[in-house]
Amino acid sequence: MKLQRGSQSLLFDTPVYIRSRASVVGKKEGEGPLGKLFDQSIEDPLFGTNTWEEAESKFLRTAGEMAIKKAGLSSEEIRYAFAGDLLGQLIATSFGMEPLHIPLFGLYGACANIGSALSLGAMAVAAGYGDHVLCLASSHFGSAEKQFRYPLEYGNQKPLSATYTVTGSGAFVLSKKPDPKGKVPLKITGITTGKIVDYGVRDAQNMGGAMAPAASHVIYQSLRDFSRSIRDYDKIVTGDLGVIGQTILLKLLKDNGIDISELHMDCGIEIFDPKRQDTHSGGSGCACSASVLAAFLLKNLEDGKWKRILFVPTGALFSTVSFNEGNPVPGIAHGIIIEREE
Amino acid sequence: MKLQRGSQSLLFDTPVYIRSRASVVGKKEGEGPLGKLFDQSIEDPLFGTNTWEEAESKFLRTAGEMAIKKAGLSSEEIRYAFAGDLLGQLIATSFGMEPLHIPLFGLYGACANIGSALSLGAMAVAAGYGDHVLCLASSHFGSAEKQFRYPLEYGNQKPLSATYTVTGSGAFVLSKKPDPKGKVPLKITGITTGKIVDYGVRDAQNMGGAMAPAASHVIYQSLRDFSRSIRDYDKIVTGDLGVIGQTILLKLLKDNGIDISELHMDCGIEIFDPKRQDTHSGGSGCACSASVLAAFLLKNLEDGKWKRILFVPTGALFSTVSFNEGNPVPGIAHGIIIEREE
Repeated sequence: MKLQRGSQSLLFDTPVYIRSRASVVGKKEGEGPLGKLFDQSIEDPLFGTNTWEEAESKFLRTAGEMAIKKAGLSSEEIRYAFAGDLLGQLIATSFGMEPLHIPLFGLYGACANIGSALSLGAMAVAAGYGDHVLCLASSHFGSAEKQFRYPLEYGNQKPLSATYTVTGSGAFVLSKKPDPKGKVPLKITGITTGKIVDYGVRDAQNMGGAMAPAASHVIYQSLRDFSRSIRDYDKIVTGDLGVIGQTILLKLLKDNGIDISELHMDCGIEIFDPKRQDTHSGGSGCACSASVLAAFLLKNLEDGKWKRILFVPTGALFSTVSFNEGNPVPGIAHGIIIEREE
Repeated sequence: MKLQRGSQSLLFDTPVYIRSRASVVGKKEGEGPLGKLFDQSIEDPLFGTNTWEEAESKFLRTAGEMAIKKAGLSSEEIRYAFAGDLLGQLIATSFGMEPLHIPLFGLYGACANIGSALSLGAMAVAAGYGDHVLCLASSHFGSAEKQFRYPLEYGNQKPLSATYTVTGSGAFVLSKKPDPKGKVPLKITGITTGKIVDYGVRDAQNMGGAMAPAASHVIYQSLRDFSRSIRDYDKIVTGDLGVIGQTILLKLLKDNGIDISELHMDCGIEIFDPKRQDTHSGGSGCACSASVLAAFLLKNLEDGKWKRILFVPTGALFSTVSFNEGNPVPGIAHGIIIEREE
């Protein structure tokens, strides 16, 4: 399909199937409201390794290997991997992906990484560049706190606007053909690629606020590009805005004449129970949207609860270096349209 | 073209033209052997900004804007940008790309970033996902030293195996059609995507040694995938191995029956004069291969000196965190086949 000038979207002529999915998360995620839906919940936050970073790599690799296995494939059959994490120089990805020996495109779009990965993966499969590609992303509470905040040993308090980084990884095999043993084919039918949106947010403990403008832009743009209304979707699901970010998102869209309050969902709000788990504004990190998509959102599509969703992973382009130099935190978000094939 | 199983390569049926290119570098690069070929050489290492990181963003943005202008386009006509740098959370890219308002895929493949960018950009154009895409990468001596080494104020000495990070950026507009005013069409006809290769290198001052195995893998694989011999290329050009890395690359390939010593070139060796400029093993950083491709390699193709090259940007997946935790430095490299259209 040809989309008009100014469009940021692609509609795939060839179906791109989500052939398999896997989610491997930490203990806290396993104890949350979606706990039973994840493929694996690992008790040990170090996952048997010596460092947070190695643990994160292991979450990523485990999810990737599981997705490949569930797809009935071997890693040699995966043409490309599209992967990312939050750490400097993408070390969770580099060390996690090395043993898989798959041609790799490392991605950085903060917590929106799974959005970049699924977009590029779907583009590659739809173009016939490979029969199967692997898309995955990871984050880890320990490695993220070390990278972005304070040593865990400080036991510092966080404001209620802060989110809690999800430990784990979500992985997906995209293919030209659906899983022959699958219940019902699930497919990516279109994407809307986001731009960097900078609203000048300078509160390093309010990533939801930094990301909400980017999410509102991409949702608005996607609806416009595809000439769709919100009634064409059963859910519009953001990545990790949390409750504060959600409020801002709903307001920004409402100011532009779009009221998604009835069908908005946020992976960061779904994954934890803030009262019971002391997770403040919600979950965040690359693994938040990736693992919730794998375990929960796709299941609802598969079970026929929903027919079509707009999945919008969100990323805050936060760095301690740029932040300490006085810069704001811009956001980015990517839209992925996922449907159940009837 | 269908390539056999086990291939890591794509041959594009549709030509992907390098419609324009731009290179903006620092003072030292401007004083080097290729100095006169760069579009712009900026005297002030801070490029009028307050920090190394902001300066790097400005190099990236300036090169990107120049490439778009040279292509006779506006930024609204660019469908996607594929961009990366070396800094944690890709801040040079995030802040550099924000004002351009182009749908963005941020990439991290260390100094091989321009290889990932050109690969994904060519894939997008060949598939018809956009008429024009922008591919770019940056690095900066000041921001890289701050990120990876010691404060510049220490004035620490480096071993002769160390390379000198290139300050600047190289940017390219890839299009379905060549520049109507261009001398001769230049095109990307194929790509070979690299895997992470870990030879266990643990010398943080010898990035050439860390990257050479990845470069040798991708060159070997590319020749095999396309059933070509080295005689099918006028040059095989790596990104930033430097003189130490070059020696290792030539040996690794020779051990596998391939002698590229006659036609190998390395951007890191070309960009500086080590005797006059005290740059030890050579230049490095994302901007090294990107700016040398823009200013020098493509010019030689355009001038008819060469007809076809295999361009292999190289990246060392080095992070102070993983390194200080005792991990080695794995490498990655991507191959891009660039030809002059006769």
